Amino acid sequence: MEKKGILIVISGFSGAGKGTLVKALIKKYHNYALSVSMTTRKPREGERDGVEYFFTDTEGFEETIRQGGLIEYAQYCGNYYGTPKDYVERQLQAGNNVILEIEIQGALKIKEKFPESLLIFVTPPGAEELKRRLVSRGTESEEVIAKRLARASEESEGIEAYDYIVVNDDLGTCVEEVHQLVEASRRAPVRREAFIEEIRNQLKAFAKGAE
Amino acid sequence: MEKKGILIVISGFSGAGKGTLVKALIKKYHNYALSVSMTTRKPREGERDGVEYFFTDTEGFEETIRQGGLIEYAQYCGNYYGTPKDYVERQLQAGNNVILEIEIQGALKIKEKFPESLLIFVTPPGAEELKRRLVSRGTESEEVIAKRLARASEESEGIEAYDYIVVNDDLGTCVEEVHQLVEASRRAPVRREAFIEEIRNQLKAFAKGAE
Repeated sequence: MEKKGILIVISGFSGAGKGTLVKALIKKYHNYALSVSMTTRKPREGERDGVEYFFTDTEGFEETIRQGGLIEYAQYCGNYYGTPKDYVERQLQAGNNVILEIEIQGALKIKEKFPESLLIFVTPPGAEELKRRLVSRGTESEEVIAKRLARASEESEGIEAYDYIVVNDDLGTCVEEVHQLVEASRRAPVRREAFIEEIRNQLKAFAKGAE
Repeated sequence: MEKKGILIVISGFSGAGKGTLVKALIKKYHNYALSVSMTTRKPREGERDGVEYFFTDTEGFEETIRQGGLIEYAQYCGNYYGTPKDYVERQLQAGNNVILEIEIQGALKIKEKFPESLLIFVTPPGAEELKRRLVSRGTESEEVIAKRLARASEESEGIEAYDYIVVNDDLGTCVEEVHQLVEASRRAPVRREAFIEEIRNQLKAFAKGAE
């Protein structure tokens, strides 16, 4: 089995519990690392540079783009957000799976650039439950909830682009499922290229030798 | 989770141990069934109609083709071989995974017709081991071994068409792996269409209701 880690993109509806899922996965298995994004947004109280985000200014961010230092980036509410390449590649080389928690547009860009990346979509057991979770937070206005539902409806159109869809009903079960999917995905030909190449070359040599 | 079984195609190099693997899988897990092929080949000693094969004559076979009763068929050494649709569909509806052990051309036809089928390629740990297994049988002439190696070399060109590649080194481990892959594949969007459709429709209704 190739030892390189897998680049995992986790997306899903707001209210699907992606953040909790990712934290639980990293806590349970030690060969996962969460990618730390670079942003031009100002740090909020308690946020540490290099932990929650790598903080920089617009000039620094655009310089990183020019140097090809980001594997994807986007603008959101007037700020840049991006995934630094260095950190991701170092982790993958060290055999760790790297998790990016991004939305579908970013996910599709990642898949295009890295066909061997693994795209996982997280959903609650059903739309009713999703609505219930959004409402029961109790912190959002009806307007915000309506917007989130509209957004979820839009997002649901893109599910087929993902490799797997997982239902986050029970957290422990879901963590196990995601881990199993990552392990299973190691057996996809796109992630076994070195092995396939080697067996092909050897078979070719044998077939030639036996002629 | 949708209860329908999964149509699994197992292919792999001669000497990869596909037959043993499939038997062990069916013995260990009870929700797998091996598809029984229809053939115009004469029964060999001990072969029972409906167990090893469904035996028929050319007329009967061609009539089954005309009626659309086969999901794939091919001619090989002057005989027809095909997969009866009825049996496969009944097993899938009953929630059993159905295994077809066929070569790559058949596998590709199945995938085209049934995008939700799962294609698994079985290989020994490497080409050296494959050669060793072919030679150590001791029953085949050098010429036959040379042909098999040439054939394996050709087959290796098609591996990317498969969903997963599994290494059959230790039989028990390999059985577990295949079972895990089948379970994982239930989470691919192509096999969760009913769930996706339902969540989409509900979200659309909620979003509309909240406008």
